[in-house]
Amino acid sequence: MNILITSGGTSEKIDRVRSITNHSTGRLGKIIAETFLDKGDQVTLVTTPKAVRPAAHPNLTIVQIENVAELLESLKPLVHTHDVLIHAMAVSDYTPVYMTGLEAVAASPDMTEFLNKTNSESKISSQDDVQVLFLKKTPKVISLVKKWNPAIRLIGFKLLVNVTKEELLKTARDSLIKNQAEIIVANDLTEISNHGHRAYLVGKDTVTQAQSKEEIAQLLCLHIHNT
Amino acid sequence: MNILITSGGTSEKIDRVRSITNHSTGRLGKIIAETFLDKGDQVTLVTTPKAVRPAAHPNLTIVQIENVAELLESLKPLVHTHDVLIHAMAVSDYTPVYMTGLEAVAASPDMTEFLNKTNSESKISSQDDVQVLFLKKTPKVISLVKKWNPAIRLIGFKLLVNVTKEELLKTARDSLIKNQAEIIVANDLTEISNHGHRAYLVGKDTVTQAQSKEEIAQLLCLHIHNT
Repeated sequence: MNILITSGGTSEKIDRVRSITNHSTGRLGKIIAETFLDKGDQVTLVTTPKAVRPAAHPNLTIVQIENVAELLESLKPLVHTHDVLIHAMAVSDYTPVYMTGLEAVAASPDMTEFLNKTNSESKISSQDDVQVLFLKKTPKVISLVKKWNPAIRLIGFKLLVNVTKEELLKTARDSLIKNQAEIIVANDLTEISNHGHRAYLVGKDTVTQAQSKEEIAQLLCLHIHNT
Repeated sequence: MNILITSGGTSEKIDRVRSITNHSTGRLGKIIAETFLDKGDQVTLVTTPKAVRPAAHPNLTIVQIENVAELLESLKPLVHTHDVLIHAMAVSDYTPVYMTGLEAVAASPDMTEFLNKTNSESKISSQDDVQVLFLKKTPKVISLVKKWNPAIRLIGFKLLVNVTKEELLKTARDSLIKNQAEIIVANDLTEISNHGHRAYLVGKDTVTQAQSKEEIAQLLCLHIHNT
């Protein structure tokens, strides 16, 4: 099978020297890639510069991207040539539009004016005591996948922080339906450590619990090959 | 001699999953550390998690920090026990205070109210189309060094982007005087690549040009040992 996997975290530039980064080591995506390679599948891994990567392998292709715009551009054609997308990347929800001092913002009669501005300077000046950064929502990549290719099998991820199991599962089920995914892997940052990684594989009528990255990868591989 | 070097770039958290990061590979700091180690000096390198590091060495101590608050806490005692500080780290100018939707900001009669708020949620919700992030200035670490220890010899750095040589040198001289540094290494991001690193070592009455990271390190080592 042709398996497309995303891993790592995207970064959105504020200026030439600063970015907003979503944290992700890429370790889970690496292990998922290795598990499918072991099964004999062809794997394309779309990942970010600082994420960990599997060792070179004849059936592995790596595509490097940095921000959401590059992710969209890379992913769209790949979604047409793969059977499965396992979208484990931490994708930035917002991207910087404009940054300026608080006084300029407070003096503005209509704040939406800043959404049409761009910083012309390469390194934004650091004179003001308080700066205000305007950010706009990025396109939701996961919601585009089945529009691009209705036949692709989609595995999504949902990371929340310090919520109840009920809230986590409900958010995952909402995402499952909205994005037409087969499984949403739901996890809570407070249950991820060097020693374990608790996750719930939420399907239409099923919830399967995993305790480690290796177990998540094995369960996904079993699911994809046996259903 | 006891040489204290900083390298890498600091990151300031927005929430548990996002940060603003100042880009810096740490390569220049690594080469400076190696150059002084070769001379037989004791080196303490204060650096960030993703920066490159020198190989282990009996005369090398590495201290890892992530953000400006940790940098201040680590650096203050070290400035008292070292003869020289070479402050090559890219330090965040601003740190996030509060993030909220544009509508809440537009509806506020006094925007300074947001400077006293903190996000209670661990992962800020991504419902709003536009979000506004308030950031406050961080303490200027370089300006505190001689207050902490007037006897320490200070080498500072100034990175600008796409400015004239005159503007770069003037900004470096201003920093030299203001921070009581011996040398400010002035460089422009557009003149740094994998092949070269142009920099001007700006002293009170001197400007020395370097073309590579190795040359910058050699010139600094010569200056420290011979003056």
